[in-house]
Amino acid sequence: MQNTPSFTVAIVGATGAVGQELLQLLHQRKFPMATLRLFASARSAGKVVECAGTRYTVEEAKPGVFGDVDVAFFAAGGSVTRALAPDAVKAGCLVIDKSSALRMQPDVPLVIPEINPEQLRTHRGIIANPNCSTAVTLMGLWPLHQAFGLKRYFAATYQSVSGTGAEAVRELDAQVHALVNAQPVVKKVYPYQIAFNCIPQVDTFGSDGYTGEENKMMLESRKIMGLPNLKVSTTCVRVPVVRAHSIAVNAEFERPVSVEAARKAIAEFPGAELVDDQAGRKYPTPLDFSRQVKCGVGRIRIDTAFDNGLAFWVSGDNLWKGAALNALQNAELMAREGLLKPKKKAAA
Amino acid sequence: MQNTPSFTVAIVGATGAVGQELLQLLHQRKFPMATLRLFASARSAGKVVECAGTRYTVEEAKPGVFGDVDVAFFAAGGSVTRALAPDAVKAGCLVIDKSSALRMQPDVPLVIPEINPEQLRTHRGIIANPNCSTAVTLMGLWPLHQAFGLKRYFAATYQSVSGTGAEAVRELDAQVHALVNAQPVVKKVYPYQIAFNCIPQVDTFGSDGYTGEENKMMLESRKIMGLPNLKVSTTCVRVPVVRAHSIAVNAEFERPVSVEAARKAIAEFPGAELVDDQAGRKYPTPLDFSRQVKCGVGRIRIDTAFDNGLAFWVSGDNLWKGAALNALQNAELMAREGLLKPKKKAAA
Repeated sequence: MQNTPSFTVAIVGATGAVGQELLQLLHQRKFPMATLRLFASARSAGKVVECAGTRYTVEEAKPGVFGDVDVAFFAAGGSVTRALAPDAVKAGCLVIDKSSALRMQPDVPLVIPEINPEQLRTHRGIIANPNCSTAVTLMGLWPLHQAFGLKRYFAATYQSVSGTGAEAVRELDAQVHALVNAQPVVKKVYPYQIAFNCIPQVDTFGSDGYTGEENKMMLESRKIMGLPNLKVSTTCVRVPVVRAHSIAVNAEFERPVSVEAARKAIAEFPGAELVDDQAGRKYPTPLDFSRQVKCGVGRIRIDTAFDNGLAFWVSGDNLWKGAALNALQNAELMAREGLLKPKKKAAA
Repeated sequence: MQNTPSFTVAIVGATGAVGQELLQLLHQRKFPMATLRLFASARSAGKVVECAGTRYTVEEAKPGVFGDVDVAFFAAGGSVTRALAPDAVKAGCLVIDKSSALRMQPDVPLVIPEINPEQLRTHRGIIANPNCSTAVTLMGLWPLHQAFGLKRYFAATYQSVSGTGAEAVRELDAQVHALVNAQPVVKKVYPYQIAFNCIPQVDTFGSDGYTGEENKMMLESRKIMGLPNLKVSTTCVRVPVVRAHSIAVNAEFERPVSVEAARKAIAEFPGAELVDDQAGRKYPTPLDFSRQVKCGVGRIRIDTAFDNGLAFWVSGDNLWKGAALNALQNAELMAREGLLKPKKKAAA
C-alpha cells in the first residue's frame, strides 16, 4: 500500500473479543496507520495493551474523542454504537460498525466486500458489518447464487462460544475443567451447561418463535445479496466449540445446478476455500478454519429434497470473517479505492 | 406383566455400548426374563458382567447357541447380524436387530412401536430397529405427519460420540484431558479432533455425496412412516457431546399448520415430551434428554421458507430410543400382545 496515505485509526471496544482480534489484524495485515487509539468503557480506561511491540493505553470511549480520528472500528455492543457513532460521524470520522444496531437501516450500507462492495460508495458516515453466522454462510451461498440464482435456503448453525464473547469462552473452559476434576458446573453466561451439550438458542426469542440470530440471518442475507424476497429459515445452535462457526445449508436455485459447476464457483470465489474430497475425507471443520481469512466450503452435493438444489457445509472464523476481518477488509478496500481519506496529510 | 410368560433372553454384543444399555434396561423395565444370556466375541468370552446384583459370564457368540433362546437382541455390528441371525431364526429365536444390515430388506419389518407397531405382526423371525438419528427425528416428525401430512423435510443433526461406540467416548474424554493438561491430542477413531470441534461426516460417503447416515435417515424415514415418495435431505454432523443426539428439522406439510396444533400433537404423542416455552427459555438439550425414555421436542415455529411448514428441534438418547430402548420396546409390545411366546413353559 505504498501510495495509500496513513490514517488515524480507533478501535472502540478494544478490550473485547472482537476488539482484540482487530488490534492484531490491523498490525498483521499492515493497515496504513499513522496513529492507533484504543477506546473502551471507563472501567478499562488506563489499561495498557501491547501488540506488535507497541504499548497502547486504553482511553475512555466518550463523546468528543473522535476529532482527529479518520476511521473508527466499533467493536462494542449496539448501545455503544447508538451512543457514540453519531458523535464520531459528526466529527468526520468513518464508523465501521460490528454491532447489529444500524445494520437494517436503509441509509446504512451493510457490506461484505467480496459481495456488495459498490455499497461502500453510498455511506453517510457509517458502514455496518453483518452478523457472524450470516457472513460465514454467504461465503458459500453468494458464489452459488451467482452461478445458479438463489431462490430459498434452509440452514442450521453450529456456533462457537467466542461469538458470545470472552466470558463465554471462559465459561466453557471452566465447565470443562470442573467436569474433568469432578467439581460442580457453574452456569452464568448460558442458561444451560454448554460443555458437552448443545443449546438451540442464540440471541433472544421474537414473537414468531425465531431467535434474533435466526431473523438476522434472513434479513441480512436479503439486504447483502440484494434479494428482498429471498425465503430463508434457519436454526441457530450454540455448540461446545471455542472458535469458528459452521453452517449446514440446503439451498434451492432458479437454474439447473451441478456439483462440478458449484465446486468451480466456490473455488474461484475470493472469500471461500474449497475443501471437498470425499475419498480423502476432506471437508472443513471449525478447528481447521479458526484464524483463517477464507471460509471453508465442502460437502457439496445435489440436494435430494429440492428439484434444483445443493446442500453444503461451511466453516469460518466468527471473530474474523464474522466480525473483525470483514470490518477491516471494508476499510482496506475503501482506502485502496480512495473512499477513505485522512483528515491530516501524513508526514512525508 | 403378571400374565406374561417368562422368556429366555440373549444379548449378542453384550459388552458394547448398546449391549450394556440393553442389559440395564432389561432389568430396569422388568422384562419378564426366566434366563438372560450374554454373548460377545471370543475375545470377551469369560468376562464377568454384573447388573442388578446378578453376575453374568459372557459367552462366545457362535452358531448353535440359540437353541433355548426365545428372543435375542443383536447389539453388535452388521457383520455379526449377517453371520449369526439366520442361525438364531432357524433355532426359532426371535431376532431384534440393532444393526443396519437388514433394515431395508422388504421382508424385515423396521419398527418404532409408537409409529408402525402393526409391522411387528409381519416378521419372519427378524425385527429391525432404526438408525439412531432417524428414530429421534421421527419422535417429532411422526405426530406432526399425523396432524398435517408430511411432504418433505430437511434436517441437520448434532450427534453425540456415543453413537460411534465406547471407544469414541474414550477418545473425546482423552482429547479433553490432553487439552486441559496441554498434552498432544491423539486421533484414532475420528479423522479429525472431536474435542471442541464438529465433524460433518457420520458413516462413509456414497456416490451421491451423502453419507451412509444421511441416506439411512431418508430411506428409513420412508419405510417406517410408510411414505415411499417422501423427500428428505439431511446433513449429519458429529459434535463433542457424550450422549443424546439432537436434530434441527424444517418440515413441509400437505395441510395448513399451526404452532398450537403442532404442540398439541407433540404433547399427546407417547414418544415425545413437549419442552417449548420461549419466555422461560425452555427447550430440549442433549444433556437433559440423556437416559430419558421420551425424546424432547421444542423450538416449534411456523417455518419462514415453506408455505406450509414447521421448524422444530428434537433431542433424544441415541443409546436408548436410538438403539437399546426401541429394541426393548418392540419386544415388550410383542410379549404383551402374545406375538412372542416362550419355547419352554415357565416354571409355576
